[in-house]
Amino acid sequence: MKKIKVSKFSHGGGIYQVAEKYGISPEEIIDFSANVNPWGTSLGLEKIIKENLQSIFRYPDTYCRKLTLLLSNHLGIACDNILVGNGATEIIYLAMRAVKPRYAVIPVPTFSEYERALKLAGGQVKFLYLKERQGFSLNVDALIEKAKKVQMIILCNPNNPTGNLLPGEEMDKIINNAEKKGIATLLDESFIDFQPEFTLVDKLKKNKNLIILRSFTKFFSIAGLRLGYAVADKSLISKIKSFKEPWTVNCLAEVAGIHILKNLKRAEGLREKTKRERSVLYENLCRIKGIKPYPSQANFILIKIKASISSSYLTEELAKGGILVRDCSNFSGLGDKFIRVAVRKKEENRKLICSLNQILTG
Amino acid sequence: MKKIKVSKFSHGGGIYQVAEKYGISPEEIIDFSANVNPWGTSLGLEKIIKENLQSIFRYPDTYCRKLTLLLSNHLGIACDNILVGNGATEIIYLAMRAVKPRYAVIPVPTFSEYERALKLAGGQVKFLYLKERQGFSLNVDALIEKAKKVQMIILCNPNNPTGNLLPGEEMDKIINNAEKKGIATLLDESFIDFQPEFTLVDKLKKNKNLIILRSFTKFFSIAGLRLGYAVADKSLISKIKSFKEPWTVNCLAEVAGIHILKNLKRAEGLREKTKRERSVLYENLCRIKGIKPYPSQANFILIKIKASISSSYLTEELAKGGILVRDCSNFSGLGDKFIRVAVRKKEENRKLICSLNQILTG
Repeated sequence: MKKIKVSKFSHGGGIYQVAEKYGISPEEIIDFSANVNPWGTSLGLEKIIKENLQSIFRYPDTYCRKLTLLLSNHLGIACDNILVGNGATEIIYLAMRAVKPRYAVIPVPTFSEYERALKLAGGQVKFLYLKERQGFSLNVDALIEKAKKVQMIILCNPNNPTGNLLPGEEMDKIINNAEKKGIATLLDESFIDFQPEFTLVDKLKKNKNLIILRSFTKFFSIAGLRLGYAVADKSLISKIKSFKEPWTVNCLAEVAGIHILKNLKRAEGLREKTKRERSVLYENLCRIKGIKPYPSQANFILIKIKASISSSYLTEELAKGGILVRDCSNFSGLGDKFIRVAVRKKEENRKLICSLNQILTG
Repeated sequence: MKKIKVSKFSHGGGIYQVAEKYGISPEEIIDFSANVNPWGTSLGLEKIIKENLQSIFRYPDTYCRKLTLLLSNHLGIACDNILVGNGATEIIYLAMRAVKPRYAVIPVPTFSEYERALKLAGGQVKFLYLKERQGFSLNVDALIEKAKKVQMIILCNPNNPTGNLLPGEEMDKIINNAEKKGIATLLDESFIDFQPEFTLVDKLKKNKNLIILRSFTKFFSIAGLRLGYAVADKSLISKIKSFKEPWTVNCLAEVAGIHILKNLKRAEGLREKTKRERSVLYENLCRIKGIKPYPSQANFILIKIKASISSSYLTEELAKGGILVRDCSNFSGLGDKFIRVAVRKKEENRKLICSLNQILTG
């Protein structure tokens, strides 16, 4: 197969490249590199998509009215406060174009698309480096200090790749300060479904400068369909909409989103499963010599490599055995000693532990 | 159902709004407003999507490597000359950001997203008004003259909504002149599959400033899945890629695209069917008093209303009977006397003719 040079993105989920490189089929790879919930496959999505296949022959509804209405009921906010997009990622880019901050503060390590979107919209980054010795936790006072000369604060809660969750009172302090000073806050809650009680959606009424991003991709596992949304003050949503390109959300993504919202109870169990397996995985990772896992509130675990090998070496070695993990060396604020693994099903996690043991101690 | 205000776009395919307004189900509406080939449903796409449903649980390949490789073989150009997108529309917006013309000339009436994308990228439009008395045909010399002070020429061939096809030698004159002067040409060939011998893909080698857009949406009917692509010089594709957001093309769209390219022979017959039905529809439209259809080389027909009613009135009246046509009054360069209808299956076209007759002569 001819090679296509790709250098613009580096994220998890690169099963196609790994499959090609090692001559295995994508189905044979266990993907710990993408933070997708492995139990989402039990939500009945295949059936509902099969029943709605005729929709592929019609244009999608650019504003996903049906899904927006369900979200409105579910979240207890008006439809005008919601914008559905092609994953949360589309809205990161739209929000940057709409707010157009000259400077934005980004605590790192975090998801790299914030920085890219900011720069493409003409903005400049002020990094706040989270400290390894503090477990990469966010120092709220340092953030507020750093935010004095910016027009936007970008936060991911729980944070990717650290798994840290900033508690409500600290978050309050940040957004209230930002609101007072007219600074926009882009709060990515893509992983909040694993800890839904920490969402700040109910703060929207008082915070006109707060944009919250949510995702169906991770908790509900529809990474391949692309679905996310933003909630914010009406005038801000309206402004973001004015930059939106038409038809970005495909028909089947909307169908899936509607099904998920109508069957949220089916998804409840997924949360407990994740917590249980995360706990087991964390404990088992702790037992492996040469690595140190960080406690996580999301469905992935950041791991420090203490042995004298690099993250790229470890990632390569695991990939040879069909196990894909996220080499974190391209995260701003992390060196070449970190990998990230998703929490998967028991048997899969066991294989990861086994492979890690072999490579690190074998 | 609560209303969501939508004013940012106005295109065909608004079956959801019409269904809501008149209390009918979207399935009961015959949609002549979206230029989607009604025979695409016979390409076996439902089956292939069912077989690939597991892909929804994995991230898509941002660069659609498999599809790009097939396109490369099909078009006889390198993978580096191709960029797959969320419909041709995504690439219109990306191309504007990459080229960033201060001014661009757009012959109108045409697809409105060019103008919107140009303006969002900070550019200004110079319209070239196509003349009704000349059947909205493009005067090449006038275009070249108008292009003297712009950085981009935007063309749609065959043109939407007029259905006019600019022949090869005239197109050559435009792109050669543009190349000589370093002006970018964005050539939207979204409807060229109905007249594939007129594509300019083989001109890419000599034209470093030519960007050609292609679509799977119209001819192959997958409007709901979103799939299109650009072909251009490698350096230009690379530049456009640098603005691309990740994962915009969903997994099932790529699966559908791959299936279509592997089974192009099945699609051959669609072209003849369209031509045959277009010819019948055109003849029948000619016979209705009070309207005048324009000859078309695509799968839609522009209609001038000569009777003393507006396009919005006619569109409303037709919608009451479940027939959706495109009110063209928001096309720059057209007044309130034009509608556009897609060429559909024989029986559906007959219903359109019948309804038009009732409203216009009844």
